[in-house]
Amino acid sequence: WDRGGEPFFSMGAGTLRVPMAMHATHREKLCEVLRKRPEVGAGAVILLQGGKEASVYDTDTNWDFKQESNFQYLFGVKEPDCYAALRVHDARAVLFVPRMEKMYQAWCGPIKPPAWFQKAYGVHEAAHTDEIVQTLRELGAKELLCVRGSPNRDSGLQLEEPNFDGKDQFGFNQRGSGALWDELNEIRSVKDEEELKILQWVNDVSAEAHLETMRAVQGGQREHLAEATFKYKAALRGCFRVGYSCICGSGRRNAILHYGHAAEPNSELVQAGSLRLLDMGAEYHGYSADVTCSFPVSGRFSRPQRIVYEAVWDAVLAVERVLQPGVCYKDMHRLAQRTLLERMTSAGLFVGSVEDMMAAGLMFHFMPHGLGHQLGLDVHDVGGYPPGEFRKDDPSVQENLRLGRKVKENMVLTVEPGFYFIDYLIEEALADTKKGGFINQEVLHEFWADVGGVRIEDDVVITSNGCRVLTCVPRTVEEIEAVMAGGAWQVSAACCRSYTAGSKM
Amino acid sequence: WDRGGEPFFSMGAGTLRVPMAMHATHREKLCEVLRKRPEVGAGAVILLQGGKEASVYDTDTNWDFKQESNFQYLFGVKEPDCYAALRVHDARAVLFVPRMEKMYQAWCGPIKPPAWFQKAYGVHEAAHTDEIVQTLRELGAKELLCVRGSPNRDSGLQLEEPNFDGKDQFGFNQRGSGALWDELNEIRSVKDEEELKILQWVNDVSAEAHLETMRAVQGGQREHLAEATFKYKAALRGCFRVGYSCICGSGRRNAILHYGHAAEPNSELVQAGSLRLLDMGAEYHGYSADVTCSFPVSGRFSRPQRIVYEAVWDAVLAVERVLQPGVCYKDMHRLAQRTLLERMTSAGLFVGSVEDMMAAGLMFHFMPHGLGHQLGLDVHDVGGYPPGEFRKDDPSVQENLRLGRKVKENMVLTVEPGFYFIDYLIEEALADTKKGGFINQEVLHEFWADVGGVRIEDDVVITSNGCRVLTCVPRTVEEIEAVMAGGAWQVSAACCRSYTAGSKM
Ligand SMILES: [Mn+2]
Ligand SMILES: [Mn+2]
Repeated sequence: WDRGGEPFFSMGAGTLRVPMAMHATHREKLCEVLRKRPEVGAGAVILLQGGKEASVYDTDTNWDFKQESNFQYLFGVKEPDCYAALRVHDARAVLFVPRMEKMYQAWCGPIKPPAWFQKAYGVHEAAHTDEIVQTLRELGAKELLCVRGSPNRDSGLQLEEPNFDGKDQFGFNQRGSGALWDELNEIRSVKDEEELKILQWVNDVSAEAHLETMRAVQGGQREHLAEATFKYKAALRGCFRVGYSCICGSGRRNAILHYGHAAEPNSELVQAGSLRLLDMGAEYHGYSADVTCSFPVSGRFSRPQRIVYEAVWDAVLAVERVLQPGVCYKDMHRLAQRTLLERMTSAGLFVGSVEDMMAAGLMFHFMPHGLGHQLGLDVHDVGGYPPGEFRKDDPSVQENLRLGRKVKENMVLTVEPGFYFIDYLIEEALADTKKGGFINQEVLHEFWADVGGVRIEDDVVITSNGCRVLTCVPRTVEEIEAVMAGGAWQVSAACCRSYTAGSKM
Repeated sequence: WDRGGEPFFSMGAGTLRVPMAMHATHREKLCEVLRKRPEVGAGAVILLQGGKEASVYDTDTNWDFKQESNFQYLFGVKEPDCYAALRVHDARAVLFVPRMEKMYQAWCGPIKPPAWFQKAYGVHEAAHTDEIVQTLRELGAKELLCVRGSPNRDSGLQLEEPNFDGKDQFGFNQRGSGALWDELNEIRSVKDEEELKILQWVNDVSAEAHLETMRAVQGGQREHLAEATFKYKAALRGCFRVGYSCICGSGRRNAILHYGHAAEPNSELVQAGSLRLLDMGAEYHGYSADVTCSFPVSGRFSRPQRIVYEAVWDAVLAVERVLQPGVCYKDMHRLAQRTLLERMTSAGLFVGSVEDMMAAGLMFHFMPHGLGHQLGLDVHDVGGYPPGEFRKDDPSVQENLRLGRKVKENMVLTVEPGFYFIDYLIEEALADTKKGGFINQEVLHEFWADVGGVRIEDDVVITSNGCRVLTCVPRTVEEIEAVMAGGAWQVSAACCRSYTAGSKM
């Protein structure tokens, strides 16, 4: 937190510098679109509540703090327990920080005055949270808009409404707050240049950390060594948090899509001949990467492992080659499914017509998740569907597809097809006369335990006429086997694949 | 999670094996004392709610799960969202686990039936959480006792009352629940043999990780390298969590007692000539170590650094030499204060009579925290004061002393004196005619910025006639300088100092 004239965020030498001006731009963009919305009155002021530090049950320890994403997007403030006001007509921004007791200095550090926060975060004004009412009056607030209490997004959960003493002295605009919610989600879903730099940075850090993890993996270890290594290597590069729980399966546990939670804490033994599936992403200034690498522990793919891996890789390429503004991601999801079915039919696992398999919904049993999702401050970022549309609305997509709209330039999203051998889903498919008829059971048993599951996940930005991949890790079988054999790998912008839609088809 | 006959917890080869029988013993001990309490009826059943997985705001990511400590103490269950019932008259234990939807298998892993949980955790019975009412009836529950909703402990916070459908069909015994709370705190505050093994284990892991961190520290780095290194090294030994936020100050930031939180994230540059103060502890099966090492970045103490360090080390030794059952920790707190005043008077910082300085409360300005606290499942563990007593009751101790009772055999506690140069507290002392008169300002300025602050923190178990130190790290100036110069250090039980009270005085 230096501030040489222009305020910025950075974790020191060799890490990325994020100018606070980025957040001012976000605020201005938001106010500009809100001024065009009839639901929003002339004297409207947005009141935001930042993330609170939360206690671990009744103890005096806290869960590791992460700033609430909307607050982070608009203000980029790392301190907990703040509020902010944003006047719609001129984007005047006021940050409110808690008033600390004298003893704060002994336990937590210097008490920074509002003027420090005003300068550090590049806002027009900073004050204490007990001055909210007075400040709102000075801002001429005729109505308040709130981000919290609005409709849910990806998760189906709801934020609490902001609360402060004297809140009832101001009128609350419910419909205007709905407009705020929709516009904020839409703005967040298209990234600006600074955000793209951050997302490239977390991808580069994640790529380096994945590489070092790949090289550290051996049979006979516990799975969590991968998690420990990734977090350590990312922290050395200034990324202190990961954007989501590390998924570090091996063998049959690759088929557990969100492995690595409290009940399955990446603690099993890694078998020497197995595949690993590592889904881990570093976070910086709130923005997360989301990268999955699948590779053989031994350094060499078995034949079944290679077949499934290359089918999934083909699905990645098929999608990346045609992605461009205007393409609907539901079609990409189906393209990936079709590619996987074709390749696995060539491999002898499936028998029959791919179109019939598509119509029967066979792929749900081998890839029950969606092809990808928006990526940003949340790992499953907002804006996967336009306002008013929800992913459960469309019965034609049975899988949990978090991104189901036409993509736009500068959206950042994941391309993450997978192919898994999930016992109960395979048993269900086999028990179904129609679906079961597509499956060659002899071939199935060659793949089932040896492969477990494969996922490949790239982070991708949509360009004006195609897309650019942000994730620079070994991807082809040859690249992976070379790196696992000790070969070099350079993470650099030059390594990232870039596509002009259609050109390579 | 193997279970060869006897269920146990372990993170694999080379890590500690914790038998689930330990938790059965805890349950039996609790029921035994409750049967003697008149507030508890004959048909009493304790109903406990385990920790819930908590979402990060409205996103679909979660805060890293940690089990609620009372639930962990009695059941040792790693899965979130459980309940349990414990019948007081015979300690019959029933564990309730959530009923999972079919899709859980694809996203989270195999659905384990109640029988699996019954065996894995060594309880008499396991059922689903929607069977609580029926099971309570089968247990003949005449009244319910709850841990939640009872008076607060160390933190001043309060747990929520457990809630489940049909709760109102059972009588709730408020006074009995108060008795449960008191007895549970008392039982938790004295450790059994298995708990001592775990606390020794987390201390050994923490010692190894501290050592590797000391060797990795250099000038010109960011402070957080220490945190990253410690967490990585502890994770490699099977400790995936730390018991509290890592405090990784350097130089003047050593004087911020709880440095390393969201607003001060261990991110400053480490100066080559400075002291570091690293307060970090590994956690295993819920139990935490709490270890602080202070050492010079350069590997050699400056004269002022050495003087303050040795004064603090003398305070540690003074306390450890006399600790034994029956000693009141308030007296130990004063003994440490007196030792520090004496040593710093010899060093010329203070002028006058130590007794007068004690009477004036001078030490509050140089060590505003208490000498130590209970340690166990919570880093500031329960039972620091006997039921009905609170630390704010006694105006004779101005500092935040979390442990203020007569210690008993097998209590585990921290001995953590410190000496800090906290700007505002020094300024307050100087502004006070009486306190200011004790301070030699010239000497003060030699120490102020060069030292910043020193803390030494040992974890100690009270034995029948003295105490044993669980923390095996380099402590004398000579030991530290030798290790920093590349010397070997063996973490082993033999290295832990053991005292018979009075023998070395
Ligand atoms: Mn993803
Ligand atoms: Mn402590």
